[in-house]
Amino acid sequence: MVRKERVVTVEGLRDGKGTVEIHHFLEKEELLGHATMYARVIVKPHSSIGWHQHVGNTEPYAIIKGEGTFIDNDGSKIAVHPGDVCLIEVGQYHSIENNTDEDMEMIALIINEEAK
Amino acid sequence: MVRKERVVTVEGLRDGKGTVEIHHFLEKEELLGHATMYARVIVKPHSSIGWHQHVGNTEPYAIIKGEGTFIDNDGSKIAVHPGDVCLIEVGQYHSIENNTDEDMEMIALIINEEAK
Repeated sequence: MVRKERVVTVEGLRDGKGTVEIHHFLEKEELLGHATMYARVIVKPHSSIGWHQHVGNTEPYAIIKGEGTFIDNDGSKIAVHPGDVCLIEVGQYHSIENNTDEDMEMIALIINEEAK
Repeated sequence: MVRKERVVTVEGLRDGKGTVEIHHFLEKEELLGHATMYARVIVKPHSSIGWHQHVGNTEPYAIIKGEGTFIDNDGSKIAVHPGDVCLIEVGQYHSIENNTDEDMEMIALIINEEAK
């Protein structure tokens, strides 16, 4: 079957600034217990997702459009572009900012920790 | 950490026609036993991924660019566009074709069957 992604608009996500659009590809129950979110995430101009920790799971970001700044667990700021994948380990923190005048888009997948 | 996606070019994928570019976001071992592939897939103009079955896993396609034709398990052909998510159940078949003059891009995730 083919159906539409589900779009949610959030202000101040994880205490970030501005607006983030989350285009959910799958619902939690469709991820079969392996993951809790799977979505295309649009960080609008001059917006961000705030600093947050991943306990019991990890959340790689795959950049597909625009430019942003990834803040890694150690606080380092890294310029990111399409083709970049931002990784964190389970238990680590991260955030991401779009300080440009264009949308930044990425694919986000929250994967559970426990291996099968 | 931030690193680049890994790009592989394949001709005749699953006995399809033409060229498909697979931009792997994560490697299998980074998917922690939950999934076996996670990638941005570019189906080049007049190319396709052939008809194939998913045993023990499922593979939703999330269309993010261009236009294509999804062939569902029952053989029905469905025109797909950005924002569409193509779902199959474990054990089902699918294929996808790009019969246009522009690239078609989608996000593919092969998720294992067993729930945790």
